[in-house]
Amino acid sequence: MPDNVVIREVGLRDGLQIIKEFMPTEHKIGWCQREYDAGIREMEVCSFVPVKYIPQFSDADELVAFALTLSELTPSALAPNLKGVARGMDLGVPKITCIVSASDSFNHANVKRPTEESLEEFRRIASVRDGRKGKERTKLIGGVSCTFGCTIEGRVAVASVMHVVEELLSAGADEIALADTVGYGDPALVRNVFSEVAKAAGDIPMSAHFHNTRGTGLANVVAALECGVRIFDSSIAGLGGCPNSPGATGNIATEDLAFMLEAMGFDTGVDPQGLIEVRQYVKRALPNIPMFGHIGDVGLPKSFRQSV
Amino acid sequence: MPDNVVIREVGLRDGLQIIKEFMPTEHKIGWCQREYDAGIREMEVCSFVPVKYIPQFSDADELVAFALTLSELTPSALAPNLKGVARGMDLGVPKITCIVSASDSFNHANVKRPTEESLEEFRRIASVRDGRKGKERTKLIGGVSCTFGCTIEGRVAVASVMHVVEELLSAGADEIALADTVGYGDPALVRNVFSEVAKAAGDIPMSAHFHNTRGTGLANVVAALECGVRIFDSSIAGLGGCPNSPGATGNIATEDLAFMLEAMGFDTGVDPQGLIEVRQYVKRALPNIPMFGHIGDVGLPKSFRQSV
Repeated sequence: MPDNVVIREVGLRDGLQIIKEFMPTEHKIGWCQREYDAGIREMEVCSFVPVKYIPQFSDADELVAFALTLSELTPSALAPNLKGVARGMDLGVPKITCIVSASDSFNHANVKRPTEESLEEFRRIASVRDGRKGKERTKLIGGVSCTFGCTIEGRVAVASVMHVVEELLSAGADEIALADTVGYGDPALVRNVFSEVAKAAGDIPMSAHFHNTRGTGLANVVAALECGVRIFDSSIAGLGGCPNSPGATGNIATEDLAFMLEAMGFDTGVDPQGLIEVRQYVKRALPNIPMFGHIGDVGLPKSFRQSV
Repeated sequence: MPDNVVIREVGLRDGLQIIKEFMPTEHKIGWCQREYDAGIREMEVCSFVPVKYIPQFSDADELVAFALTLSELTPSALAPNLKGVARGMDLGVPKITCIVSASDSFNHANVKRPTEESLEEFRRIASVRDGRKGKERTKLIGGVSCTFGCTIEGRVAVASVMHVVEELLSAGADEIALADTVGYGDPALVRNVFSEVAKAAGDIPMSAHFHNTRGTGLANVVAALECGVRIFDSSIAGLGGCPNSPGATGNIATEDLAFMLEAMGFDTGVDPQGLIEVRQYVKRALPNIPMFGHIGDVGLPKSFRQSV
């Protein structure tokens, strides 16, 4: 029996958040539906941030409502604070991601408070979540940004990562997501960090969020697989990344990730050829945005067979 | 003590062979010198093919002569047959690569004869090499093309690869180079094949030649490292690949490979920042050729430290 791996599409959130041009809601819905049809069963569909900061997510409620109609889909959303999480819980989002940076400087730069205050906010969030009576329990993904390095601090100590992970776990995180926010990770570091986190996480699943900024995204996936990671974030066409770095690619491309995992014999439930068609749909909807990834241009190998 | 890994630059051969526009010899020499200055100690500098087929290599003798002046460099060259190998031996090239395809159809398409005849030619070559008296012994790299799949046959059986490897070894190959000629490899297949080849090769070194056609190049490097491979081919800016596949990237990029290996703690002796400058030199010399790779665009991480 092949191992199952979950591919979580994050393009609708991480891809779109840096795209200024508003993508019409019907295109977002078309994208969501098509990825579902290609076999994707987890999707981060929006971020609950104030519209004045990111107008792209002004239709977050509609996206969530649509995603909840797809019977086997687990939609998730990013929330920067308790207010956003409360909104997501009210909408019935089953999984919500809250991010704390392992780099204090990055946390300051990003949300204008130290890491410790973000951890305090996470504890408040978990406590509010735990106190909700008569509702489906919302799962909280404890995301750790700058796990593998930081553009301000450079190296980030494994001890700093472990501190954040342990606090997230003790507060009640249902999943630990380690993010290579700035694309500094290499397979040896990924192996080191995930094997430490695995000891702390026990039965709580770990997930990986790799950017492909320096071309090591899929290599890092191989290292994380070896540490037992079975949930990977990615975005179609590698959308995302940093708008201020010319030439910088974004997330690992969902279609390339699905191809590699299936070729390796993992069961993702996802059809890479179907994803190539989703990519074409997104390309038509976002004609001015650079697309990354490889199999979208060159197709699958003639030797390719779906794992199941 | 960190493990040593050899990065063999093949851009002057694999990169240039598909570029129609003749690169002036002085630029090839400048490229060669600059990579040497960045720490590269093995370089495939040309192919000994008739000039009427690939005019780009009309200055092969000059390139070899220059490369031999770099005291710590081991230059190598590709030769399609005994005639080419004899020419290389006469010029004093210390390592010559001869390629046999694990796919019979590909061998036919490429050199118009079956795999068995190419193996016969390899035995003849090795025998001529062994018979040369009073000369430095030329090393023969036995290259296996289509190791991980073939655009004509699709999957290539591990048994076919092993047959070619065993014949090359018994004829006297000094290194076994497994090539993902068409970019079909994935880390699981790479691990399977290299671990089988390792058993047959014993003390004879193995090397890997990965194309990044489907984005898995560096992921395949991670898998090969786990099997004990310590020699990797790559080309600056990822030059190479297939001129007939729009969007298809070529070899893994030397600068990205060096960055990843050094970040992982392997000692390559190569300075990735120096390679970024070589890439700029090559870009100026070949302004119309697409350049690939990542760190050439985004630079090294702030967290980067050279392994030694």
